[in-house]
Amino acid sequence: MRGALEESANPSSIYQAGQRAKLSLERARKHVAALIGAAPRELFFTSSGTESNNWALRGLLAGQKRKGLPAAPGASAGRAAQAGNHLIISAIEHPSVSLVARRLEADHGVHVSILPVDHEGRVSPAELQRALRPETVLVSVMLANGEVGTLQPIAELAAVAREHGALFHTDAIAAAGHVAIDVKALGVDALSLAASQFYGPQGAAALFVREGVRILPLLEGGGQEQGGRSGTEAIAAVIGMGVAAEAASRDLPGRTARLAALRDRLREGLSRIDGVRFNGSWTARLPHNIHACADGVTSESLVLGLDQAGISAGLGSACNSKAMRPSHVLKAMGLTDEQARGALVLTVGVPTTDEEVAQAIERMPQVIDRLRKVTALTSRA
Amino acid sequence: MRGALEESANPSSIYQAGQRAKLSLERARKHVAALIGAAPRELFFTSSGTESNNWALRGLLAGQKRKGLPAAPGASAGRAAQAGNHLIISAIEHPSVSLVARRLEADHGVHVSILPVDHEGRVSPAELQRALRPETVLVSVMLANGEVGTLQPIAELAAVAREHGALFHTDAIAAAGHVAIDVKALGVDALSLAASQFYGPQGAAALFVREGVRILPLLEGGGQEQGGRSGTEAIAAVIGMGVAAEAASRDLPGRTARLAALRDRLREGLSRIDGVRFNGSWTARLPHNIHACADGVTSESLVLGLDQAGISAGLGSACNSKAMRPSHVLKAMGLTDEQARGALVLTVGVPTTDEEVAQAIERMPQVIDRLRKVTALTSRA
Repeated sequence: MRGALEESANPSSIYQAGQRAKLSLERARKHVAALIGAAPRELFFTSSGTESNNWALRGLLAGQKRKGLPAAPGASAGRAAQAGNHLIISAIEHPSVSLVARRLEADHGVHVSILPVDHEGRVSPAELQRALRPETVLVSVMLANGEVGTLQPIAELAAVAREHGALFHTDAIAAAGHVAIDVKALGVDALSLAASQFYGPQGAAALFVREGVRILPLLEGGGQEQGGRSGTEAIAAVIGMGVAAEAASRDLPGRTARLAALRDRLREGLSRIDGVRFNGSWTARLPHNIHACADGVTSESLVLGLDQAGISAGLGSACNSKAMRPSHVLKAMGLTDEQARGALVLTVGVPTTDEEVAQAIERMPQVIDRLRKVTALTSRA
Repeated sequence: MRGALEESANPSSIYQAGQRAKLSLERARKHVAALIGAAPRELFFTSSGTESNNWALRGLLAGQKRKGLPAAPGASAGRAAQAGNHLIISAIEHPSVSLVARRLEADHGVHVSILPVDHEGRVSPAELQRALRPETVLVSVMLANGEVGTLQPIAELAAVAREHGALFHTDAIAAAGHVAIDVKALGVDALSLAASQFYGPQGAAALFVREGVRILPLLEGGGQEQGGRSGTEAIAAVIGMGVAAEAASRDLPGRTARLAALRDRLREGLSRIDGVRFNGSWTARLPHNIHACADGVTSESLVLGLDQAGISAGLGSACNSKAMRPSHVLKAMGLTDEQARGALVLTVGVPTTDEEVAQAIERMPQVIDRLRKVTALTSRA
């Protein structure tokens, strides 16, 4: 990445530095494609997971023929192609999916259905079966929820969608690099992933689009990325994504086993704290994630208190940390506002040591205890 | 940038590393805003100039009330707001403006007018005056064409648009950091700029949107950038953009004078080569740019020949280097295909030395001479 930052050449230029940048770009594309079992030509670099998700929904819908009602007289081609078409998403999607779905509904006349999840945060293939209509063109369900940790049965869901002639997109941003992914085995038509979620840099992400699936661009211009995504590529970040993908591919089972062991030890330690409950599935789960709720404290005070004790935790969704509202994911899983108030995400990672896990187990009860006392005093006053 | 790459924290997270990232982001925002005379809150970071341009056109049009024909019965709010509205762009815009305009026309019923340019590549305020209609909501004219080097009379053009109640966007990607820009003096409502065009990294760019101007997001999700542009910010790249902006601000007149002197010497040297003509304005011009056409050679062979001689030149538009077709900019300026065939962009930069300019002046006639002989032989065969 440092070399690329020094050189900063444009991979679309025909002079030598540009050609070197182009080679780096294609090497990275090979590694990222390999991480998910895709062909390099099926992989398009973007700037963020958010862009990948926005593009997947908008581009796939715009690229499909109208299956809904006949075109209104006077409607232009672009709108006619989308109005009346049906999109299905789950209730626990990231806002970069759910807000785009809402916008497509408001501005393009797309109909949107939202699939519920069970108390573990799982979408059921039977529910998808019921929601599908003749005019359904796209289904988008995330592979893993990065907040609550639950993995979705994507292969089954995608098979149901395919049977009904609908495309299937999965937001694998929280999962890629942490669990084995094979786009062919999953049977998905499109998949989003982002480097910063698997030890790569910010500013590099990708969308896999299965060969033969029609998608219109979200960003138009110079025609980079086979015309699919215009804009000069951020070479340094893309190189970082390639290296991160290669590292993740190299020993995914080993890494996963080690992280799951650390995570399980942490969970075991936390389970001894009074009034701490765990959320999400424990069988279909990201290997490095714990989602817990602690009674009698708020997420915000917990995250800040842990931060002071040297433990970086998440509120549930970093993207929403400013919003300070109960997570839509926990609500969809049936938790009450009161139960969701003390929600906390803890993750272990490649750099996490046994000692750090031991420290966290030692310090967390103290932090929670102190916060509970403060809360009790405040509510009495 | 290195520090940020090591840390890779999410500026939306409330733990300490996240807060440090947030501070870096806001420091960069201040420096980039200062480069163009904007308030920091008017500046939104994006991933590329292409994204800034795409967002400006789509977001500003979607954010304006319908001024065109009355809404068709049954049309949804989003579409009704845009159909019949009028957009004006120039004939020499980058594809990230012109292709988006075409898409808005096809898919959203927006009417698009294209302003011609004179033989120097200048858009005339009188032409804009004639093109404006009661339903014109947006005018987009680039500040400088990075290919041909001509600066546009943006302040005059923006004043004409404002008088008619239309918003004005300028693509300043080729100009920012090279000429003094003050968004207030220019009177523009939106302005695109990209770090990689002024010695910053790829992957960081921005859109200025004047306070009070309504723009809808292009990327939706976690609500970063005041809700205007979702997606985790590429902190390292943004920090680099801030440093590059600060460096450019620090001594813009001095830098400009030095580059213009080097550029003029290079031009003087090239003017002695037979059959070389210069294009674009020589009074309203980017200080570091030369655009020339050489008779009897093609752009591609020229760029490759110069590359071998240690001189990195551009075909005219790096974005289009794969397309190998005569530039739409040169055509709009009235050049014939034959004249445009040997078009070449040469730029000097901060690292360019007097010696390098002297070498280029010495080597270029030899390269052109050799290529002309090859062409003559080939066409005889």
